[in-house]
Amino acid sequence: MTDTKTSVTVLGTGRMGSAIARLYLAAGHTVTVWNRTPGKAAELVEAGAVEVGTVADAVAANAFTVVVLFNGDAVRATIEQAGSLGTVLNLSTGRPDEARDIAALVEGRGGRYLDGGMFGVPQTIGSKDSLTIYSGSPDAHEEHRGLLELLGGTLYLGADHGLGSLNDMAVLGGMYGLFAGFFQSVAMVATEGGTATEFTERLLLPWLRETVELLPTLAAEIDAGDYPVSFSDLDVNRTGLANIVRTSREQGADTRLLDPLTELFDAQAAKGFGAASFTRVVEELRAR
Amino acid sequence: MTDTKTSVTVLGTGRMGSAIARLYLAAGHTVTVWNRTPGKAAELVEAGAVEVGTVADAVAANAFTVVVLFNGDAVRATIEQAGSLGTVLNLSTGRPDEARDIAALVEGRGGRYLDGGMFGVPQTIGSKDSLTIYSGSPDAHEEHRGLLELLGGTLYLGADHGLGSLNDMAVLGGMYGLFAGFFQSVAMVATEGGTATEFTERLLLPWLRETVELLPTLAAEIDAGDYPVSFSDLDVNRTGLANIVRTSREQGADTRLLDPLTELFDAQAAKGFGAASFTRVVEELRAR
Repeated sequence: MTDTKTSVTVLGTGRMGSAIARLYLAAGHTVTVWNRTPGKAAELVEAGAVEVGTVADAVAANAFTVVVLFNGDAVRATIEQAGSLGTVLNLSTGRPDEARDIAALVEGRGGRYLDGGMFGVPQTIGSKDSLTIYSGSPDAHEEHRGLLELLGGTLYLGADHGLGSLNDMAVLGGMYGLFAGFFQSVAMVATEGGTATEFTERLLLPWLRETVELLPTLAAEIDAGDYPVSFSDLDVNRTGLANIVRTSREQGADTRLLDPLTELFDAQAAKGFGAASFTRVVEELRAR
Repeated sequence: MTDTKTSVTVLGTGRMGSAIARLYLAAGHTVTVWNRTPGKAAELVEAGAVEVGTVADAVAANAFTVVVLFNGDAVRATIEQAGSLGTVLNLSTGRPDEARDIAALVEGRGGRYLDGGMFGVPQTIGSKDSLTIYSGSPDAHEEHRGLLELLGGTLYLGADHGLGSLNDMAVLGGMYGLFAGFFQSVAMVATEGGTATEFTERLLLPWLRETVELLPTLAAEIDAGDYPVSFSDLDVNRTGLANIVRTSREQGADTRLLDPLTELFDAQAAKGFGAASFTRVVEELRAR
């Protein structure tokens, strides 16, 4: 056990963990760091951090510990090496069930748990371009607000430990839809030799820039419950998507990425919702 | 046969056709209009347009005809009622094969064919916020450039009549990917009672605004041929997507919209491309 008293402990000194440790150092905090591979924090030590050899020493050094490890299993295994705990902010990527499990582990050792999901990269952390969403202990969130705000924008979602992770995963799920659409469109233009770069810069990107701005209006349709038509109804979109799928097929490009959306449109049409907004397909995803 | 000589004929006076006719009138052109349902153009006639009762009269009135009808079948049926043709610009939504068929029909009647795909809505047509992509007769495109530029931004893609339509369909295919991702993400947050509006405005939209700006870099990876990693490799994305799918499933939301992307990631990983960029999945869509 070291007797060095510091403001912040950082467990995990990969790219993101290191960027966070540097932010705290720059803000005048003393920082204790630990990494599974000793010596990996050499540059941080040069910058003023204190490296310790055990997780127990690291968490004992202060009342606020940030964990940035590879996944939920790594977080769990690391926390199990700690003694009694103060506040633990887990910024590692993980699922809601993992966040809830780790929270129970932390609380079992007398600590308070905050889950954080970072929308940002190491280069933007600390700036207003980055946003971190938090869930878990409201007291811990309140008490350490100053330390949290050093990481950039903050949004507290609620006491349920899994909320941060769920919202994080949901945003990334949306992002993969965007990527899937991008892959589909590029594969389509490639059938006539079009380059991805020219197509994306001239056509796709300007159109998607405008389309993302429609999402709040579509979200309002969904929250309204009866799916009023702000832009276009299900029948119009069903016809439009069928044309795209047929074009793709006739051009010799795979349609696999679009087929499930066709299925959802068809299912809603079969139930008689052709005149409702096409956003009504979310009903198909909720109903399990 | 009327002897009214006009600059522009517009076939189809729905919302988009009417908006286009008004643009030409406002620019000082005389405009002849025809609609399948007579009298539907009353407001345009008040604004100065000449309504005629037959397609043959309408296209005979000038050397440049714009067609804005419901679909390819309607365009075909309408063109078949015309006599000899000048330049026909088809702005109706349709597939590449339909554009090529209609082009042959137009050319068989001595005309020149231009296919146009509009990225815009009736409210933005004519402004720099709208873009129309053209393919087909390069001579007609050159000769009528002034009339085309009145519709807003222009981009000529080449002589193949189907190119405009293919690029149009490809952009819309990309858009449906974005929508699918949106539906997925909203369904996920709904499992814990999160509203679509708050989630979209606070989290999803800011993240997607940033993410669309990455697409040109991802497109460059695809055009490079060997898929260098600009952001993250296939293995990282495969793990990330698996976490999202598992979260979605554990929360009780359907994962159907994401499953095909998982399939593509798995297929590329099985072929040993885990260290290449995740954009390499477009190879799976091309290979049929």
